[in-house]
Amino acid sequence: MGRRALLLLLLSFLAPWTTIALRPALRALGSLHLPTNPTSLPAVAKNYSVLYFQQKAFAARHLHICVIQLNHYKTPLVDHFGFNTVKTFNQRYLVADKYWKKNGGSILFYTGNEGDIIWFCNNTGFMWDVAEELKAMLVFAEHRYYGESLPFGDNSFKDSRHLNFLTSEQALADFAELIKHLKRTIPGAENQPVIAIGGSYGGMLAAWFRMKYPHMVVGALAASAPIWQFEDLVPCGVFMKIVTTDFRKSGPHCSESIRRSWDAINRLSNTGSGLQWLTGALHLCSPLTSQDIQHLKDWISETWVNLAMVDYPYASNFLQPLPAWPIKVVCQYLKNPNVSDSLLLQNIFQALNVYYNYSGQVKCLNISETATSSLGTLGWSYQACTEVVMPFCTNGVDDMFEPHSWNLKELSDDCFQQWGVRPRPSWITTMYGGKNISSHANIVFSNGELDPWSGGGVTKDITDTLVAVTISEGAHHLDLRTKNALDPMSVLLARSLEVRHMKNWIRDFYDSAGKQH
Amino acid sequence: MGRRALLLLLLSFLAPWTTIALRPALRALGSLHLPTNPTSLPAVAKNYSVLYFQQKAFAARHLHICVIQLNHYKTPLVDHFGFNTVKTFNQRYLVADKYWKKNGGSILFYTGNEGDIIWFCNNTGFMWDVAEELKAMLVFAEHRYYGESLPFGDNSFKDSRHLNFLTSEQALADFAELIKHLKRTIPGAENQPVIAIGGSYGGMLAAWFRMKYPHMVVGALAASAPIWQFEDLVPCGVFMKIVTTDFRKSGPHCSESIRRSWDAINRLSNTGSGLQWLTGALHLCSPLTSQDIQHLKDWISETWVNLAMVDYPYASNFLQPLPAWPIKVVCQYLKNPNVSDSLLLQNIFQALNVYYNYSGQVKCLNISETATSSLGTLGWSYQACTEVVMPFCTNGVDDMFEPHSWNLKELSDDCFQQWGVRPRPSWITTMYGGKNISSHANIVFSNGELDPWSGGGVTKDITDTLVAVTISEGAHHLDLRTKNALDPMSVLLARSLEVRHMKNWIRDFYDSAGKQH
Repeated sequence: MGRRALLLLLLSFLAPWTTIALRPALRALGSLHLPTNPTSLPAVAKNYSVLYFQQKAFAARHLHICVIQLNHYKTPLVDHFGFNTVKTFNQRYLVADKYWKKNGGSILFYTGNEGDIIWFCNNTGFMWDVAEELKAMLVFAEHRYYGESLPFGDNSFKDSRHLNFLTSEQALADFAELIKHLKRTIPGAENQPVIAIGGSYGGMLAAWFRMKYPHMVVGALAASAPIWQFEDLVPCGVFMKIVTTDFRKSGPHCSESIRRSWDAINRLSNTGSGLQWLTGALHLCSPLTSQDIQHLKDWISETWVNLAMVDYPYASNFLQPLPAWPIKVVCQYLKNPNVSDSLLLQNIFQALNVYYNYSGQVKCLNISETATSSLGTLGWSYQACTEVVMPFCTNGVDDMFEPHSWNLKELSDDCFQQWGVRPRPSWITTMYGGKNISSHANIVFSNGELDPWSGGGVTKDITDTLVAVTISEGAHHLDLRTKNALDPMSVLLARSLEVRHMKNWIRDFYDSAGKQH
Repeated sequence: MGRRALLLLLLSFLAPWTTIALRPALRALGSLHLPTNPTSLPAVAKNYSVLYFQQKAFAARHLHICVIQLNHYKTPLVDHFGFNTVKTFNQRYLVADKYWKKNGGSILFYTGNEGDIIWFCNNTGFMWDVAEELKAMLVFAEHRYYGESLPFGDNSFKDSRHLNFLTSEQALADFAELIKHLKRTIPGAENQPVIAIGGSYGGMLAAWFRMKYPHMVVGALAASAPIWQFEDLVPCGVFMKIVTTDFRKSGPHCSESIRRSWDAINRLSNTGSGLQWLTGALHLCSPLTSQDIQHLKDWISETWVNLAMVDYPYASNFLQPLPAWPIKVVCQYLKNPNVSDSLLLQNIFQALNVYYNYSGQVKCLNISETATSSLGTLGWSYQACTEVVMPFCTNGVDDMFEPHSWNLKELSDDCFQQWGVRPRPSWITTMYGGKNISSHANIVFSNGELDPWSGGGVTKDITDTLVAVTISEGAHHLDLRTKNALDPMSVLLARSLEVRHMKNWIRDFYDSAGKQH
């Protein structure tokens, strides 16, 4: 049961990389539904303005731009792959054309992932930063079943029948239809090159879109896209191993302290007084019972994972308000593993507090606040139970976590219980080719070496036109974030390479078009 | 109404190119179901043995080979693109491995089209002829909803709900899963290159399979595959124009005689005595009424179309037992357009009789015997009403038919009435790229210049690796037929080019595999 819970959490919590950004807003609204009114923008953009002025200024600017051309596209079919269901739904997308040139311009198309598209718009400053140079129209397309693009409204997550159309293939077909719609309806767009851009699952979609619809996009930038985190394409332990490395390198004995903490928790939770003590030491909002211990450890594990994903070189508020290089800050409290259980757990609290309470406003920590209560995570949980079956495991030796093997059977039973569906773990490889993708072209795979998702990503060139860009000091799709004075050289270089590739694709497009006329 | 009928017939009758081969057997069995028992093989292979000995000898040899490794693959999912339906079905496929080599061999995979796979096996002698040279295992995969591969058994065509999984995308996914299954279960197959081969709609599937699953097949031979017979990618009149050219070139005044015949029929059918006379002159099995006239003209048109498709240089029994260059034989009866209506129609009968009664055994001609009564045509009619929307038109000037414009609205209403579905005419282009396919590689598109389907085919090289092979004296996928002493030089050259490309793909595969080891 414990193992299943961890694995499920890994899937439903780790996997929705960027949906984590949704949670502050969701908490603020106390609702499953994300803000739809531009005037009620997510709390995250308002709350932390003093701490992160530059970030906030960026967010405000982009929120403004995103919102002025917020569109709903009324014709996508709920089912592109069958003809018995003729229902359509409203797909939301954002357009920004301030720097777009009808002559010689381009279209940068964000292949939206598992969350509200406004959030992706606000967290993909790179596209805004290069728009002028590429004379680009920016389009952000919302993924079906996320944000406001709900095929069956409030019933979208009701049962497996309503969820039946939540697949990557349907999402890619939505993107294809939307691009056709834009080219048909925006004068000047028809004969322009389109480039797919996405991060995380959105990066997978960008790469897959180029693979499956190369007639629609001249290339794709797939940032932090773990397209190989499937079946046995990479070792199931690679993800947590990278998390561990991040902690090991961020402070002396840091990962060792965390590795020791699990047994300390187990020992302390053996008695009622130990549980009471733990509740107090960790400043938890609710008293711990012995049934909560696995959940507590999962929650702590998730915290370390999240920190690894957002270990950015400058203060950021992607998930929580955090200082620059937050793992270094965390590790300052975890320098000594050879202390008593109680002292170790007091130190763990200080570390967690960096993540959960950097603002100093939080009264207590709530271990039931996980991503599983958000709309985006609902959809992602279903996707992780069907197509997006990513094996994770730990062994406690190569990583700092308790050992947990990958158990497909348990996942399958759990998925059946939750959604009435069972995963098809080999389908993504059948559909998208696994490691055998060398016949494709014009995809840039970027990965940050600090990012645990890089373990399932493409980190070596496959061909001259399927290239890997590695960002040694980068966490999860750092390259897609807006430029920052504290950006390390590696991300500046990565962005420069990415722009060069995009310019080449655009140039080749116009060269080829010129020859035809 | 007349126009709708013709267009529908064009779709439901012309389009299932090779299902026409099914009809003799279907008639013989008096059933919708094709023979499943190898001992009750289609009548066509038995009936015409004396007339076409060589053909029969070939057929018998291959029927034998096909049948000894007839398999049913039990695990394909009815719905690859959703998770609510977990039903599976039995997909039939044939394997012949006489010449297969585990070391350095290859797998030629026939992407089955709209009919019984045994028929395709028997009419694709080219694969048998090259098996030894390519050390190839031959696999013939049956397309879902055809032959014995019926997802819902007798209920497969019951309604749009049961038909919902009859799409090209599902069929391609079936092929992908089958290839994975073969590689998993046949020792030695795992590390071998697979080449997709298909003719007609099967050729479209071969090309699309390479486009969408390039990790599964190193290349594709798409014979007589009209992948551009969609939307306005080619003029809607090109098909019937080529039919007309075939007749024009096969005898003096031949097409002109046919062009004049329609008005002659119209005039003769104006009176009861004229109808009676026509019934006798055409040796029809049932007396004509004035309501039958459009149907009669459609049936005659279809006959000319079929002749254009099977205008082979040697006697064949692909559809009917026919002499070599059957249009030339037909045109011997149509040398003089400037005769009375009645004499013209008597000549038309002689011409039709070549097609319907070359054996001399037929007592009367039956205009209600159309492909719409066959299983394959049922499925195809649905496909033509959903994805495979091919515009056809005639103008009576560039072609020898009565003018009929393309009417999507009428088709749509008719499809809704028949199947409860409406066509999505632009979907195939969205999905498969239309004319914008230059980013793909390793596809040979072959077309016969006599074949009306070449009008919607790729007849010019697109890139160095997307090449067109033109067969000046070829009708519908002549190159896929077994070698024949009467084969014209153009088809010998085409086959030689095709083999060279396949050898290159196989060599590149092994070169690349060698570098990795």
